[in-house]
Amino acid sequence: MLIEMPRHTEIFGSVKIHELQRVLKLDSGGFENPRAKDISFGEIKAVLEHLAIIIPIKDEKIHLLDGVLRAIPFDCTVIVVSNSERDAHDIYRMEKDVITNIHNLTQQEILSIHQKDPELGFAFYEAGYDCLLDRDGLVRDGKSEGMITGMLLAKSLGKDFIGFADADNYVPGSVREYVIDYAAGFCMSESPYSMVRLHWRYKPKVVEDRLYFKKWGRVSETTNKYLNLLLSTCTGFETGVVITGNAGEHALTTKLADIMSYSTGYSVEPYHFVYLFDEFGLKAEKIAYSDALTAGIEIFQIETLNPHLHEEKGEEHIKNMLLGSLCTVYHSELCNDYVRSKVLEELGDILDAWERPPENIMMPPIGVIDASKFTKLLKSNSETFVMHEQGSIEDEAKEEEYLKGESFQAV
Amino acid sequence: MLIEMPRHTEIFGSVKIHELQRVLKLDSGGFENPRAKDISFGEIKAVLEHLAIIIPIKDEKIHLLDGVLRAIPFDCTVIVVSNSERDAHDIYRMEKDVITNIHNLTQQEILSIHQKDPELGFAFYEAGYDCLLDRDGLVRDGKSEGMITGMLLAKSLGKDFIGFADADNYVPGSVREYVIDYAAGFCMSESPYSMVRLHWRYKPKVVEDRLYFKKWGRVSETTNKYLNLLLSTCTGFETGVVITGNAGEHALTTKLADIMSYSTGYSVEPYHFVYLFDEFGLKAEKIAYSDALTAGIEIFQIETLNPHLHEEKGEEHIKNMLLGSLCTVYHSELCNDYVRSKVLEELGDILDAWERPPENIMMPPIGVIDASKFTKLLKSNSETFVMHEQGSIEDEAKEEEYLKGESFQAV
Repeated sequence: MLIEMPRHTEIFGSVKIHELQRVLKLDSGGFENPRAKDISFGEIKAVLEHLAIIIPIKDEKIHLLDGVLRAIPFDCTVIVVSNSERDAHDIYRMEKDVITNIHNLTQQEILSIHQKDPELGFAFYEAGYDCLLDRDGLVRDGKSEGMITGMLLAKSLGKDFIGFADADNYVPGSVREYVIDYAAGFCMSESPYSMVRLHWRYKPKVVEDRLYFKKWGRVSETTNKYLNLLLSTCTGFETGVVITGNAGEHALTTKLADIMSYSTGYSVEPYHFVYLFDEFGLKAEKIAYSDALTAGIEIFQIETLNPHLHEEKGEEHIKNMLLGSLCTVYHSELCNDYVRSKVLEELGDILDAWERPPENIMMPPIGVIDASKFTKLLKSNSETFVMHEQGSIEDEAKEEEYLKGESFQAV
Repeated sequence: MLIEMPRHTEIFGSVKIHELQRVLKLDSGGFENPRAKDISFGEIKAVLEHLAIIIPIKDEKIHLLDGVLRAIPFDCTVIVVSNSERDAHDIYRMEKDVITNIHNLTQQEILSIHQKDPELGFAFYEAGYDCLLDRDGLVRDGKSEGMITGMLLAKSLGKDFIGFADADNYVPGSVREYVIDYAAGFCMSESPYSMVRLHWRYKPKVVEDRLYFKKWGRVSETTNKYLNLLLSTCTGFETGVVITGNAGEHALTTKLADIMSYSTGYSVEPYHFVYLFDEFGLKAEKIAYSDALTAGIEIFQIETLNPHLHEEKGEEHIKNMLLGSLCTVYHSELCNDYVRSKVLEELGDILDAWERPPENIMMPPIGVIDASKFTKLLKSNSETFVMHEQGSIEDEAKEEEYLKGESFQAV
């Protein structure tokens, strides 16, 4: 891959935010280039082998999941965490069938589990991490909760890198690029605590009877504005460096995943920034994460070459997304009165005059959980947990052959 | 890559047409698979190094060309043949700027030329191939004429494989896949005379206010129907094997390119089939191409994983495309009265009752042209011909450094 060098890096305490880097070419010839970073396929592959891609899914068209699975590089492990319907239509069963079929064909490592599996709730309970459980002992609905489930599974496989991809993507080749962009980010990182966030080159929308290639989403633009305002008021220097506040497409090192707190709902992605600002910005006395403080935390923002074309989810969630995102800024420890007043102004249409932005539900770092024990519990008890290992079919085939050979000899 | 085996192969004389093969996974793990063909990245790369991708272009949005160039694998050579405006707006100059910029960044081998360059017309005239010249001595308008220009340039570079890609593609990652699909086809081929034709998985259209993922184009379906009818009446066995009659996205070995005749306008792609049926179907006495007759001609039809999302060109060309396509069938040497009557029936809305389908303009095989001499002429005389060699910037930089070193020593 050939990727732009970041023109500027904003530093706030231990947090380094690199300016947007564009993907210049999806592969490269290994020539020296003063203007760009050349990352060889070998380097990318070395990261992919230690990368798990988590796909949180909820009642998506099964075609789309199929396409996405066919496009994700073979060297990664895929972890599907489904919160799809299991009643009238057992959509999770269809998902499992697609996964099994892809595994039979490709022999890629793929795991899957259903978010509402009682054994999953129990495993979280056993791990002492019950903050994402509902009163009925099941894992709450929500993408964050699915993401945390996936991260623990990735950890138990010993993965060093964890990335996310949505299953509602119309263009399999785009998803493939996202994963390779993640790997490229980690190739550039100098810290074991790093995060890669993607910015779509275009997000086409149907406007009247043709496609319009939008560059910015409505919510994204506002979220970025307030994250930048928060950062600017802290450092005293105005900046527009944050352009991936709502980046659903992101990846992080397992080391960083272990020390992050996670917000719920639509605020999970912008809260990454707020958490890192709060924890690793001004204050430098955190003892728990002294290693991260010293190494620094790097955030890469990469502009994809491909457009992002996905299922339209309608207008309803826009307000909630904006509210969730700006609440993270409002409740930041670093947020001053000026920023708070600006956020309230922005939310004027959404909140009533007397309302304060609600606090987001927070989930503490997962580093404390014994992921191996967690997964072992699921392996032995869970009915929905499926673990297709890499090349297991071949092994089965070999075994069969071996057995055939035996019986042949026996005959 | 992991790709389906063709379930069936239709054989007509020396022509083998393989049934549709779906791309199962864009990469693979090298496991044995009874249901699919596993093609390693190394094998693909070995083909890419001998593949030229020709991009015929005419006044496309410059953004789209840029995206396509960034996505085509580095190991290929790209040949842009432009018939864009050069008067009020010099669009060709903008295209050249984009090409130069991409070459400076990536150092990929890229050639470009303008179709209306008088020296190009002269080079064809000198080569004794004046069938594509207008009265003014310039190359005619038309995509076929651009394709032939590109093929000669590819030949002069000693390329073994030639593929085509349109510059109006909204999804760079799709174009990347097309090129890799071509390479996969050639990896599977057992004959030096082979062709790979792509069938898009979906071709999304804006229908009312949302995207509809169409599988079949209106013209394609009809073209395929009549190509299959022609084939069926010749062999006596009904078949539906041809599903890529109008495949603009196709590639062929240079050896095959040398012995093909080319039709003009919208009929260039369906005429591939008709020509091969006419020449290598029943008659087996051709002396000129005895090598091809013996080796056989293989046609692969591959279903892409990615959808094809391109510029909408409006409705006007649909009729012409249908007419051009069906005329190739009507004028086939093998076409009998029954097929001719069916074609006339289909064209009822387009042709008046007394009209016969017009004959397509044909261009004879290019194998006779001395491509090196052709390109040498362009190199020395053409004003629009640009040839960016692989890694030439590095060489320049080194040279500069060397000169600097010299002057340093001199000081």
